[in-house]
Amino acid sequence: MYLSEAKKAGGNDTRLVVVVARDSTVRKVRKRGPVFGEEARRILVESLKPVDEAILGSEPFSFEEIVGRVKPDVVAFGYDQESWMRDFLKAKKRMKWKAKAVRIKEFRSSPVHSSSAAVQKILKEEAWRKDGG
Amino acid sequence: MYLSEAKKAGGNDTRLVVVVARDSTVRKVRKRGPVFGEEARRILVESLKPVDEAILGSEPFSFEEIVGRVKPDVVAFGYDQESWMRDFLKAKKRMKWKAKAVRIKEFRSSPVHSSSAAVQKILKEEAWRKDGG
Repeated sequence: MYLSEAKKAGGNDTRLVVVVARDSTVRKVRKRGPVFGEEARRILVESLKPVDEAILGSEPFSFEEIVGRVKPDVVAFGYDQESWMRDFLKAKKRMKWKAKAVRIKEFRSSPVHSSSAAVQKILKEEAWRKDGG
Repeated sequence: MYLSEAKKAGGNDTRLVVVVARDSTVRKVRKRGPVFGEEARRILVESLKPVDEAILGSEPFSFEEIVGRVKPDVVAFGYDQESWMRDFLKAKKRMKWKAKAVRIKEFRSSPVHSSSAAVQKILKEEAWRKDGG
């Protein structure tokens, strides 16, 4: 749903390029590393219908590098990516980019929340469900 | 990759309908219940590029019900669905269905293995990675 909204934010005939975080970037911004490695995550994201292309970010991540590579007209951020969006807007001002930044709202009502939420659910429950065996 | 192979197994212009297991069916055949609920899994599967439609199985699952509903020409099974395929072949004989059964090989070399493998990896490691915080 998030990626469909991101694609819509670009208007008609948008080509949606998704930048997938490197494992090293995930480890930098989260308490734990990713469950799936970066190439697996890239393939998974690229297999989704709204996505035209999924690419890995640079190491370390840099908006200058990725904007130079993708040359976007619109850059979409998730509801939980406020600080990334601020960093982008600073770089945009400095580099005089034309690309528009948009923020995609949260989908709380969706049955599909996030893989992190699912993983946290498992770790909280700590045990296999007992009613299934 | 599995679903792309399943789609190819139907030949040109195949419409790929994926039957997503009900939560109750998952609990019957596995030691634990699913991480994501059935409607979330259905939406996730339907968001994948090779998939034309994802539908939930009946409760309890029945090949007679699902073959009557989908009317498939080819039915694809995963490498780990040998007993499901045997049950299908018995029902096919009994019901005199024309539908062909095919088995899709395993993708061991893929970086994307299975969500179960990923979840098991987390549970085995039991702790968040410590090098990321």
